[in-house]
Amino acid sequence: MTSHSTIMVKKFGGTSVGSIERIEAVAARIAKNVANGEHPVLVASAMSGETNRLVQLAHDVNPSYRGPAYDMLLASGEQVSISLLAMSLEKHGLKAQSYLAHQLGIKTNSIFSKAKIQSIDSDKLKSIINNGIIPVIAGFQGVTDGDRITTLGRGGSDTTAIAIAAALGAKTCEIYTDVPKVFTADPRLIPKAKEIESLDFKEMMEMASLGSKVLHFRCVELAAKFNIKIHLRSTFEEREGTWIMHKEQSMENPVVSSVTHDPSTCVIKLFPAPFGSKFLAGLFEKLSESGCVVDIITQSHNDQGQRLAFSVREEDRLKAAEVAGELVKDGDIEVLDNLAKISVIGVGMANNPGVAARFFRTLDATEAKVHLVTTSDIKISAVVDKSSLDRVAIALHTEFGLDKSSV
Amino acid sequence: MTSHSTIMVKKFGGTSVGSIERIEAVAARIAKNVANGEHPVLVASAMSGETNRLVQLAHDVNPSYRGPAYDMLLASGEQVSISLLAMSLEKHGLKAQSYLAHQLGIKTNSIFSKAKIQSIDSDKLKSIINNGIIPVIAGFQGVTDGDRITTLGRGGSDTTAIAIAAALGAKTCEIYTDVPKVFTADPRLIPKAKEIESLDFKEMMEMASLGSKVLHFRCVELAAKFNIKIHLRSTFEEREGTWIMHKEQSMENPVVSSVTHDPSTCVIKLFPAPFGSKFLAGLFEKLSESGCVVDIITQSHNDQGQRLAFSVREEDRLKAAEVAGELVKDGDIEVLDNLAKISVIGVGMANNPGVAARFFRTLDATEAKVHLVTTSDIKISAVVDKSSLDRVAIALHTEFGLDKSSV
Repeated sequence: MTSHSTIMVKKFGGTSVGSIERIEAVAARIAKNVANGEHPVLVASAMSGETNRLVQLAHDVNPSYRGPAYDMLLASGEQVSISLLAMSLEKHGLKAQSYLAHQLGIKTNSIFSKAKIQSIDSDKLKSIINNGIIPVIAGFQGVTDGDRITTLGRGGSDTTAIAIAAALGAKTCEIYTDVPKVFTADPRLIPKAKEIESLDFKEMMEMASLGSKVLHFRCVELAAKFNIKIHLRSTFEEREGTWIMHKEQSMENPVVSSVTHDPSTCVIKLFPAPFGSKFLAGLFEKLSESGCVVDIITQSHNDQGQRLAFSVREEDRLKAAEVAGELVKDGDIEVLDNLAKISVIGVGMANNPGVAARFFRTLDATEAKVHLVTTSDIKISAVVDKSSLDRVAIALHTEFGLDKSSV
Repeated sequence: MTSHSTIMVKKFGGTSVGSIERIEAVAARIAKNVANGEHPVLVASAMSGETNRLVQLAHDVNPSYRGPAYDMLLASGEQVSISLLAMSLEKHGLKAQSYLAHQLGIKTNSIFSKAKIQSIDSDKLKSIINNGIIPVIAGFQGVTDGDRITTLGRGGSDTTAIAIAAALGAKTCEIYTDVPKVFTADPRLIPKAKEIESLDFKEMMEMASLGSKVLHFRCVELAAKFNIKIHLRSTFEEREGTWIMHKEQSMENPVVSSVTHDPSTCVIKLFPAPFGSKFLAGLFEKLSESGCVVDIITQSHNDQGQRLAFSVREEDRLKAAEVAGELVKDGDIEVLDNLAKISVIGVGMANNPGVAARFFRTLDATEAKVHLVTTSDIKISAVVDKSSLDRVAIALHTEFGLDKSSV
């Protein structure tokens, strides 16, 4: 490695370091990168299954505990994987050192289990790199000003990688995972789903919000903020993956880049509901306190009173109905289940006013019953019967030209 | 807890925190201690089996690696156990916090895997205690001035506990383990072995040097240095264990307090060996480099030349003979195996000149063949045939009055 090497932040997920053999394979790949003139800066998750094992231990000891000891416990998973990866790199003759969050000054706020990164000691990191050392950094963890270990929540290691790239002024961050590319839709649902070459940050953020597990919202949001291109690719293949980046708007952009779905949705309907935002504030506060995640909310009223409908995850439906029942004494509460949410996403939508019409015409043509709708400037979502999900998804994928081989 | 609570450092070993149930039992016991006016300061090892699991992972990845990443890996074991113990204490309504070495400024030198504690931030620790918090401290680990994690070697958690007690100016340190007391001998070898109420630091150090696994040498050495009484006791029983402390020398002290043995010893004999300390220095340097642990060394010479004999562990005998063979070209090298070392230990010996005579008379009466002998002011060791070990040990135990019920 020389001072002319290109610094490249590379993040490896749990399956990528899930066994001794896989750690070995990652190290071999890094050795090739170094031979090709890169100076890698590595971020790793815990070995797959390890975080779940630790969560289970915590649950067995004290299911209600959340706080510093819980985060310290979970942070041990990354400590193991980065140590092993550093040792494996040394076997390949590379100078590598493992680093925990506190050793690189990865400072966060004090919201345990959901902490947010506030700063990184980039001078320390740069001096490590200038000394020719490959840093192997624990993802998912940080440290408070008071020197307590925090964790960043699910997907936190991706966020760590982007934050490290930002601290180093890098233009790109590679995120290695177990899929080769992002797809236009879930291939299990839509056999004609195609691989996507590139996506706009906004599209990826919508996909993350809509339940795509590929990248978490915060990681993409941070990458967008610092304009760091994410190269999402497979640990097990050499070829390019999907680029997530700022994309120029042009006529040639596809209007819709992906169709996503969430197969477990429920709708709660209240009628008549009390008028006024005070009631709404109280209702959604109580739902949040009881752990119900509310997604789409619609409200309307006519002569007979106010009509309120909102969607929740299937597992929250009974609790949500109970909470609503405590606040709505005189109205009816209806729970609709066996529903699914289907969405189309695309930055091209903003310049194409006809998308909503095409969306609903397709739903109509497939005789789908629409229960709730929500839109943003780059997506349209509808809650439909689960039984119609497949045919609606396939029809939308075709309608917006995603069956074609190049996207 | 009030400012009048007695601070008590308590160390729990791997079997004491080896499962969720055992962690729970430790927490329940601590809750009782607090109710009785103690302010506990806890030090814990990794859950039993965990350190071995991590060592195996390291071995699978890179068997030759030793350095910072190895120590970081091993240190994760204590991180898990202290987090779980702190969470369990919280369930009992106690205010507890887990602390890693770097969070308490447990500074060591930079000899990875065998680091020595140099200082502890006692102000930080005292302020935690003054805030009514029970600190749950990771044993076995430290941090260098350069902020790298180190580990202290086998038995390191005991050493951490004594160092913490010293930093707090405590007079006593409780070490909880899976045996109720130290015995006058191994009960599997000598059925009449008795429990010992108290031992002098020097006796315990000799026992540790002679292979007793109860406490490690460095821990006892540190306790002696700071005059901290060790109360070694069972996690699973309430009764008192064995006290290790400075003992006044008096006529009533038993001359010998224990009989220890090491069942796997070998002797290498060289004759004639080259004269001079240069040869000896070269030989023992080479043996050390090749990983052979040399125990007893004797040397004598007569008209025919110099005679050298030394003992090594059984597994090192072939390597030791090979090393010796490279340096002694013209002499004979003899390897004696199936040997065992038997020792008697007692601070009372120093004032009782007849002990050696009684020792050898007993060996003679049991017709034991003596191959090597070594003595210090408080112990006598002899290497005998393994076949005679049982009867020699039993006879010595009787001869020095250890069969009697009170020691």
